[in-house]
Amino acid sequence: MSAIPEQFIKKTDALLESARKPFPGSTKVYIHGSRDDIKVPLRKIELTDTPTANGSESNPPVYVYDTSGPFTDPDIRIDLRKGLGPVRNGWVGERNDTESTHGLSSEYARVRANDPSLDDLRFEHVRQPLRAKYGNNVTQMHYARQGIITPEMEFIALRENQRIEQLHGDTIGQHPGQSFGASIPKLITAEFVRAEVARGRAVIPANINHPELEPMIIGRNFLVKINGNLGNSALSSSIEEEVDKMIWGIRWGADTIMDLSTGKNIHETREWIIRNAPVPIGTVPIYQALEKVNGVAEDLTWEIFRDTLIEQAEQGVDYFTIHAGVRLAYVPMTAKRVTGIVSRGGSIMAKWCLSHHEENFLYTRFEEICEIMKAYDVTFSLGDGLRPGCIADANDEAQFAELETLGELTQIAWRHDVQTFIEGPGHVPMHMIKENMDKQLQDCDEAPFYTLGPLTTDIAPGYDHITSAIGAAQIAWYGTAMLCYVTPKEHLGLPNRDDVREGIIAYKIAAHAADLAKGHPGAQVRDNALSKARFEFRWEDQFNLGLDPERAREYHDATMPKEAHKVAHFCSMCGPKFCSMKISQEVREFAATQGIDGGDQAIEVGLKEKSAEFKSQGADLYKEV
Amino acid sequence: MSAIPEQFIKKTDALLESARKPFPGSTKVYIHGSRDDIKVPLRKIELTDTPTANGSESNPPVYVYDTSGPFTDPDIRIDLRKGLGPVRNGWVGERNDTESTHGLSSEYARVRANDPSLDDLRFEHVRQPLRAKYGNNVTQMHYARQGIITPEMEFIALRENQRIEQLHGDTIGQHPGQSFGASIPKLITAEFVRAEVARGRAVIPANINHPELEPMIIGRNFLVKINGNLGNSALSSSIEEEVDKMIWGIRWGADTIMDLSTGKNIHETREWIIRNAPVPIGTVPIYQALEKVNGVAEDLTWEIFRDTLIEQAEQGVDYFTIHAGVRLAYVPMTAKRVTGIVSRGGSIMAKWCLSHHEENFLYTRFEEICEIMKAYDVTFSLGDGLRPGCIADANDEAQFAELETLGELTQIAWRHDVQTFIEGPGHVPMHMIKENMDKQLQDCDEAPFYTLGPLTTDIAPGYDHITSAIGAAQIAWYGTAMLCYVTPKEHLGLPNRDDVREGIIAYKIAAHAADLAKGHPGAQVRDNALSKARFEFRWEDQFNLGLDPERAREYHDATMPKEAHKVAHFCSMCGPKFCSMKISQEVREFAATQGIDGGDQAIEVGLKEKSAEFKSQGADLYKEV
Repeated sequence: MSAIPEQFIKKTDALLESARKPFPGSTKVYIHGSRDDIKVPLRKIELTDTPTANGSESNPPVYVYDTSGPFTDPDIRIDLRKGLGPVRNGWVGERNDTESTHGLSSEYARVRANDPSLDDLRFEHVRQPLRAKYGNNVTQMHYARQGIITPEMEFIALRENQRIEQLHGDTIGQHPGQSFGASIPKLITAEFVRAEVARGRAVIPANINHPELEPMIIGRNFLVKINGNLGNSALSSSIEEEVDKMIWGIRWGADTIMDLSTGKNIHETREWIIRNAPVPIGTVPIYQALEKVNGVAEDLTWEIFRDTLIEQAEQGVDYFTIHAGVRLAYVPMTAKRVTGIVSRGGSIMAKWCLSHHEENFLYTRFEEICEIMKAYDVTFSLGDGLRPGCIADANDEAQFAELETLGELTQIAWRHDVQTFIEGPGHVPMHMIKENMDKQLQDCDEAPFYTLGPLTTDIAPGYDHITSAIGAAQIAWYGTAMLCYVTPKEHLGLPNRDDVREGIIAYKIAAHAADLAKGHPGAQVRDNALSKARFEFRWEDQFNLGLDPERAREYHDATMPKEAHKVAHFCSMCGPKFCSMKISQEVREFAATQGIDGGDQAIEVGLKEKSAEFKSQGADLYKEV
Repeated sequence: MSAIPEQFIKKTDALLESARKPFPGSTKVYIHGSRDDIKVPLRKIELTDTPTANGSESNPPVYVYDTSGPFTDPDIRIDLRKGLGPVRNGWVGERNDTESTHGLSSEYARVRANDPSLDDLRFEHVRQPLRAKYGNNVTQMHYARQGIITPEMEFIALRENQRIEQLHGDTIGQHPGQSFGASIPKLITAEFVRAEVARGRAVIPANINHPELEPMIIGRNFLVKINGNLGNSALSSSIEEEVDKMIWGIRWGADTIMDLSTGKNIHETREWIIRNAPVPIGTVPIYQALEKVNGVAEDLTWEIFRDTLIEQAEQGVDYFTIHAGVRLAYVPMTAKRVTGIVSRGGSIMAKWCLSHHEENFLYTRFEEICEIMKAYDVTFSLGDGLRPGCIADANDEAQFAELETLGELTQIAWRHDVQTFIEGPGHVPMHMIKENMDKQLQDCDEAPFYTLGPLTTDIAPGYDHITSAIGAAQIAWYGTAMLCYVTPKEHLGLPNRDDVREGIIAYKIAAHAADLAKGHPGAQVRDNALSKARFEFRWEDQFNLGLDPERAREYHDATMPKEAHKVAHFCSMCGPKFCSMKISQEVREFAATQGIDGGDQAIEVGLKEKSAEFKSQGADLYKEV
């Protein structure tokens, strides 16, 4: 029993309060699946009525994908010290292919568990880990290939579909996009989810030791997902700050969270994060392995790395970034680059390879890693250790040599039924982005692509959430399944809460712009509802339908703070006389009285007859509110 | 003689001080042309040396395009009450085709000039306007078509080329882009400028009554430009705020400024702005015309509008947005739209057309407007009054019908040798952007395109600088010549100083990303220099080369505030142990000692021999700084 200090408890409770505040106008609702324990969360945004000449017209609520988990459900009592409820426990258990490890399999984890000096930091309710029974493979891909539809798959089908149900009542202005070879069905079925996972075109990161997880899918025939990074470094931040950033990140829409901690107490920080995370958690195990050898890359060994994989897999990490493609022969290809190797994991492995003059042990031991992955269902995120760190280095020999190796490793992982996705750049000018996607699809046989940006120019430190959102939107349109966010602090420092919010929103924008361009069914419902609210001066609805209702309201109120202005039929940009929306409504109302639409042959006649009438009607339209 | 109140003077002086502060590490320099009065400004960014094993390696300065005018030249004394020096006076005068108007030609301008109640607001040193001598045409297009290279054209050639001179010493990693049919020469000559203007593929907005202007060009075979909007409305802001926003906007990089004022004292505000503007100023004259008829659109007349054009042309406005493409027959096409007509000018004209049931007088009087334009060299910005205001309305019948009409009007303008560019959307999902550009090039015979974004989704009020930077970067890559910025306050309120800065930087990013993708010669020099600085931990250089050095420094200092950290070989993101840049430099240094490059056959041998040595050398590389 640990003794978490009082101060720590107070801090986490205070943080929790602001993260649990419901979004205005929103409530948490659930779609129920074929069984009681499949409850898919979504956020329902209630809209106000539109006043009309004959009373009012109701506007249907808009349902949006909800990554925030139980935190935004006021009916659920949450105690960060206890963690979230294990919603997947039954699903994992009933498959009857796992067993308790009876203790911790990782030597390092055992040492930490028994170190009394860590009691003050340790999460109290550490569960007994599970692993596959001997000879079993517990990956979602393995089930999928046997034709089994898991509860996770059904959950995902319901989750991905939620917007489509709204389409029935609202089909204005849908523009089917160009999906560049992706094929998104009108209705996502559990069978479609299964088939995509079996084919390797999608992954469901869902470690059997992460029962708190609400399952989600990453694949280009589904909604584009985004990842938010957090993590302490040797220089700053604490456990409670990192837990807070996770909860804060999923509140704004992060679909997965990567814990990139490199400082002290990585193990304990991770436990706190996973036990409170309803989204998949990814890590880069080599970071912790390097800490274990005091930062001396050449002292890394397969044994230390292997123990780290098991340590993290038993905590419940859902995906591992593994830099197995940084082969010895590729390292010299980076010598003439402007910015060399910019991936931390990549540079660590490059250094190891050079100093030992040996092939990367992650490459030579890849099948052994697969064995671990399939015992816990950890998904591979094959790291792009040689990604370009500037425009000048984009799409070079080193980058593409590694990508080809990642393709080769994908085939090996798939032989083990281990779920796999591929990491991508980085810094790439716009005209070179598509080549990345095309080559990745070909080399990696359509395994999902997961890119960092890419940043489309190097000249804007402080604004790289924007330089990269431009590239991210494009590459996601071309087929990238998940986008790793970039915050305004990129290249300059560790993101704080505000930076996390800015980064997430920029990436929600990029992902949604891509969903629209790909023609994802239903994606446009929210745009249409917001635009209708905007046109009808339903200010509250416009704020509430936005990605950041608080910011929208704050900006509006900066120039028009009065409550009366929330129903004003104009805004401070143009003032009442110049409001095009207002004039436009008059045009529409006039047209409606004439029974006019765009193709009507009676327009000319009607307009002529009624122009005088309109003129007299219009005389009072500009009165100040 | 007016009596500007003391308080007003103090305010403008205070504002001026912050806008005149030089960027860190930067100085203003000039390229001299063929004659003494051609002095092309640029900003020189001095870089520090790179420490090397043998002493140090110097890094050449980087020269960047400078829109900020005399304000950032500490040698020039500026008094906002007197305005800037008339650098073009001699060029206009020596052509001997203009004459003084002897008084003001606009009736309205005369009334304002003689109204003593405006003395406190009026700019003191109003010049006597010029206009073309009878029978003359004073447009840059007219000269270009006669084969005349004006000083303005020579100025522009030098200005556009400044980056190329840097290429000589620095050609690392240039990736020629895809220019989608544009053809940007390696060296921009004055003759090339002339030919592009003659062909109508580029415009030089340069009213003969705006001698303070430093000439610039808008065309897809040149650097992508951006426009910043300002303007008071009935609800807020004052003259000094608007002048300040102009100076603030050009400091951050606005190539042109549109004054969209709709509130009180539009005439006086404009005079202050133009007299202090080294960049072209654009307006939408219908806004002021509407004020003159007290906001009642149906009371607008050709006579009032005509007087407004002359009033503004004699003040020196460089381009006019004219919504001549909003034809009566197109208005009903907007009735079924989600957001109707969102252009203020478009909605005003639509209302006028409907209420009179007459064709738009801007369309019927177009040749008369051309006569005015060519007497002062005002450039047409043919307004897209029917642009889509939401994703659902993108690329619809109304929008494209108007675009075809704008093409027809372009041919008429060109018959008068009047310079013309075309405004574009708006809100467009990514997959529908290219169609806009392709159709514009075809319908408008390659006249320059000038777009507002486009915004690629509607769901992010408060972040529309980002939703639109995504679309802006794409459409500029496809060939758009100028991008109209969008600030975070779009749809919500009037931008303040901070919003102007955010909007400008987002658009500088979009424009520069497009220059890279188009393969603009020399565009990548700045990226390469910044990335080299980043790799070498020259923090100050990294900040100073960025679009916003102040922000970059502020973000860096948030986690590593100490001065010692400015030379630290790591940052707070990864800390000293995990710095990939640092490890990568070790890899490079090691490779250098072996004479290794990417293609070297000796790699294997060299690496093998030296791996032990590297190991021992590397042992002290992780010491904390």
